Amino acid sequence: MKTYLDCIPCFFRQVLEGARFSGASLKQQKMVIDELARRLPGVSLDCCPPEIARIGCAILKKLNPRKDPYLKVKQKSNRLALAQLEKLKNRVAHSKDRLLKAVELAIAGNIIDFGAKNNLNVEIELKKILAQEDKQVRNKSIFHYREFKRALKGAEKILILGDNAGETVFDRILIEEIKMLRPEADIFYAVKSGPIINDALPEDAIACGIDKLARIIPNGSDAPGTILSLCSREFIKIYNKADLVISKGQGNFESLSQEKRPVFFLFMVKCPVVAENSGCRMGDMVLLYNLSK
Amino acid sequence: MKTYLDCIPCFFRQVLEGARFSGASLKQQKMVIDELARRLPGVSLDCCPPEIARIGCAILKKLNPRKDPYLKVKQKSNRLALAQLEKLKNRVAHSKDRLLKAVELAIAGNIIDFGAKNNLNVEIELKKILAQEDKQVRNKSIFHYREFKRALKGAEKILILGDNAGETVFDRILIEEIKMLRPEADIFYAVKSGPIINDALPEDAIACGIDKLARIIPNGSDAPGTILSLCSREFIKIYNKADLVISKGQGNFESLSQEKRPVFFLFMVKCPVVAENSGCRMGDMVLLYNLSK
Repeated sequence: MKTYLDCIPCFFRQVLEGARFSGASLKQQKMVIDELARRLPGVSLDCCPPEIARIGCAILKKLNPRKDPYLKVKQKSNRLALAQLEKLKNRVAHSKDRLLKAVELAIAGNIIDFGAKNNLNVEIELKKILAQEDKQVRNKSIFHYREFKRALKGAEKILILGDNAGETVFDRILIEEIKMLRPEADIFYAVKSGPIINDALPEDAIACGIDKLARIIPNGSDAPGTILSLCSREFIKIYNKADLVISKGQGNFESLSQEKRPVFFLFMVKCPVVAENSGCRMGDMVLLYNLSK
Repeated sequence: MKTYLDCIPCFFRQVLEGARFSGASLKQQKMVIDELARRLPGVSLDCCPPEIARIGCAILKKLNPRKDPYLKVKQKSNRLALAQLEKLKNRVAHSKDRLLKAVELAIAGNIIDFGAKNNLNVEIELKKILAQEDKQVRNKSIFHYREFKRALKGAEKILILGDNAGETVFDRILIEEIKMLRPEADIFYAVKSGPIINDALPEDAIACGIDKLARIIPNGSDAPGTILSLCSREFIKIYNKADLVISKGQGNFESLSQEKRPVFFLFMVKCPVVAENSGCRMGDMVLLYNLSK
């Protein structure tokens, strides 16, 4: 999807929150904002939001080039989500449709997103996921589950585009279900190649035990999404050959929504622009198949 | 109060919403955003938010210099609020403390603010005011009513700094109460001298019947607040001589909060920055006396 003018206030918010998260001084925070302001008029809105968000992230990285400000928060997210693993697995085990429950949990896990909301309390969000999931309070305006099941049936090469650390635990549960249904399939789990917000890196996928279930592949880029022109050849090869692509999160949706190849997008709607673009509402759980209809 | 870095995303939102409200094309909307982005790095955050918001408003005015895009909305706000006048007066008449009720209503009327929220439905907001006011759901974290009553007692020259069109009807009710308590006092009602968002102009004050109760004075500026350095000498003279200044709305608070002279600020908290600065919470009804303690 292209960038909306409404994304622009949000880029400033993101870069400001990111600067604060990195421990920047007030003066540095102002510098970061000013640099983004200087660069924005030259940027075309034809590119997708993660491409512009990347400019902000690059400005932030100059503040402290070697540090990963979200390292601790990612480790904490993994740890807290892992502590819920057995409970989550139990939910799947006791549900009428195991795959459906695993898909729902994988979407619910997408709430752990520091790009959309920086002052996130992962512990509280996890509790909310479990409570809301109990009550089914989340709306599912677009939920192409039948198409998903059908696509899964014949799939031999399955690629999951991961999103955030911690959310990886929820993805692990989905992978376990997929493996039960497709024990012979090759499963790939793509992560970012360099730190960007709280997006999962190879070490996060490993910490959440995904290495025992799937082949973890860095996508070659540190964009907060999957911008194909920035990805490695190895990743592109797998992406092109996969007969089922499961894309997690808003960033991946924003960067791949106009793809011609079939993709299943699993995400929570966390911003009004994505809501409008996807035809959903804020807070919705979405399972969107781009080639449906 | 000075401008917070958190105000910057909001300036972009305001200017974008203002451009849309003015019927600007997508290309014009982008031009407006880009121009604000180019100008922001040169602006010091030591000035108050309305001073920076004014830059955005000036950019917007270049789009359509002769038009007042909020004209219809202001007229509609006046009309809708006037339709509630008898009901509101009745509430005052049937309350235990008439002045208190009038003050509360004057604050509640401050919800009609297109600067804080552009897609405002005045009709719905008016209904909410009446309903919420019934249930007393609004929090009053700071409410210097005793000081206000005391200041009113001896006041001979009273200056009210108006805020938005429509809200003027609520101010009228307060002025009527004040006149009953201080029949001899000179009452001045300040409005903006040129169109700015939905801020009240002389014609709005007249449409709401304030001319029969007070002397309407344009403040000499079209800033969305009261920036003294931009106001007329005539206004400043009245401002300096007044023994009671009642300032309505966030914009006036943002521009006058550091004043040394006594001012009573009446407003609804509609942004987190003002909430932090005033020590209140979002949605609070505030009656703040700057010289208390």
